[in-house]
Amino acid sequence: MRERQVFFVSDRTAITAEGLGNSLLTQFGEVAFNRITRRFIDTPEKAHTVADEIRRAGDQSGSRPIVFSTLIDADMRSIVAKSGAVCFDFVDTFIGRLEEELGQQSSHSIGKTHGLTDSSTYNLRMEAVNFALATDDGLTSRMYDQADLIVVGVSRSGKTPTCLYLALTFGIRAANYPLTPDDLGVMRLPMELGAHHHKIYGLTIDPGRLRAIRTERRPNSDYSSLQQCQYEVRQAEALFRHNGIPSVATTTMSVEEIATTIVHELGLQWHLP
Amino acid sequence: MRERQVFFVSDRTAITAEGLGNSLLTQFGEVAFNRITRRFIDTPEKAHTVADEIRRAGDQSGSRPIVFSTLIDADMRSIVAKSGAVCFDFVDTFIGRLEEELGQQSSHSIGKTHGLTDSSTYNLRMEAVNFALATDDGLTSRMYDQADLIVVGVSRSGKTPTCLYLALTFGIRAANYPLTPDDLGVMRLPMELGAHHHKIYGLTIDPGRLRAIRTERRPNSDYSSLQQCQYEVRQAEALFRHNGIPSVATTTMSVEEIATTIVHELGLQWHLP
Repeated sequence: MRERQVFFVSDRTAITAEGLGNSLLTQFGEVAFNRITRRFIDTPEKAHTVADEIRRAGDQSGSRPIVFSTLIDADMRSIVAKSGAVCFDFVDTFIGRLEEELGQQSSHSIGKTHGLTDSSTYNLRMEAVNFALATDDGLTSRMYDQADLIVVGVSRSGKTPTCLYLALTFGIRAANYPLTPDDLGVMRLPMELGAHHHKIYGLTIDPGRLRAIRTERRPNSDYSSLQQCQYEVRQAEALFRHNGIPSVATTTMSVEEIATTIVHELGLQWHLP
Repeated sequence: MRERQVFFVSDRTAITAEGLGNSLLTQFGEVAFNRITRRFIDTPEKAHTVADEIRRAGDQSGSRPIVFSTLIDADMRSIVAKSGAVCFDFVDTFIGRLEEELGQQSSHSIGKTHGLTDSSTYNLRMEAVNFALATDDGLTSRMYDQADLIVVGVSRSGKTPTCLYLALTFGIRAANYPLTPDDLGVMRLPMELGAHHHKIYGLTIDPGRLRAIRTERRPNSDYSSLQQCQYEVRQAEALFRHNGIPSVATTTMSVEEIATTIVHELGLQWHLP
């Protein structure tokens, strides 16, 4: 497999550069990309240091490195551009057309890249994280009145990370309730959930994958046996169907995909700008 | 303030379209952007529905909507392009130059946008989330041997969300230890932390901001008084200085910024591809 050096360069967190850069790279399956991120490159000196590093990487590998950047400052951009790399600047490419369309100069200011720093937004996310922690794994069901969402599923189907991601990213208050073998013996929603039918979303998973995840936690147990995993998943799926609860199979999905699927399917409104 | 309608359109989660789109919009302070996200637009029918919605928004507001999209499929892109909006396509804009540089056609496949779905990556992130939960708020300090990082700070300085973000995003095992008034009376690191000096990172915060956060939680208490907040922050900062512990003031930072600052300053290697 061919190898190629990739740099993500940003004057702030590099989250945007990594996000779009990685999306683009996944479209090219036959190359092994060696990724390096250089964050907080916010002075010409730092830009020179990164440019030198990129230049060396190009010399050593014999092919031009690929740079994905979100450098706002034109001087720093031109320093990095002289490193001999193929440069994709995600801000500079679009900002001119946006200025034209909006009839306004951009502020060209570093440090506003996410706009998530104002305190009301911070508070909403923190409250949502606290809510997710307080209601994790079926705890404190009396708080379900305040929930935007209650995620249900068998143990290890991905409930906790999904709820934490929704809280951190969208400020959504997501509780999660584990379906235990006791719940699964009957085709009725657990009592705690009864009054909140419209907020419930189900996670399901391939039994073989569930077995692998549970085996990491408790090898050679009933809990992680294929038979038990098959039974629990089958019963949970029947429970969802029987009660008209929307659900998604998490088997091949990332946490981001599970979370945005729920937001999409339930039409959740979230609290962040 | 002028208003402008903005649409984020994606055939998958829209995380990339929102991320870069919002970064660009923050450069324009004098416009109030009204944002709508349309995810999972993966058929021509859905693309037509979104295009109609965009067209109506333009008719009603009297100015062209702005569309940030990551639609991979050329047909769907052209359907949306005919809505009369100003379209910025974050994939199409770069993919041609990348194909040329790599000497390879892109797969043009929907659903690979993050590449975070393989099970080893999933496992690493889940283990890191479980680790963060098990070691939250000073719990289970015997697990500090397995930590990549231990975040310390006074109550409500942002430790828990930072650790959860690091776990979910990077698969970093981050524990957090709260500095209590007992710890702060002496200028010595708490015993549990002694052997892990190189893994410790401090969070600090403006006392006025801390007071506001604590007041939401426990109004009119000693805990939330300005005097107590000032005392705790001053002592925590002195403790960091005295022990050579790097730290950052979280007052005006988003969780993303706090987390990537720590990764950057400690030079943490993380476990995800």
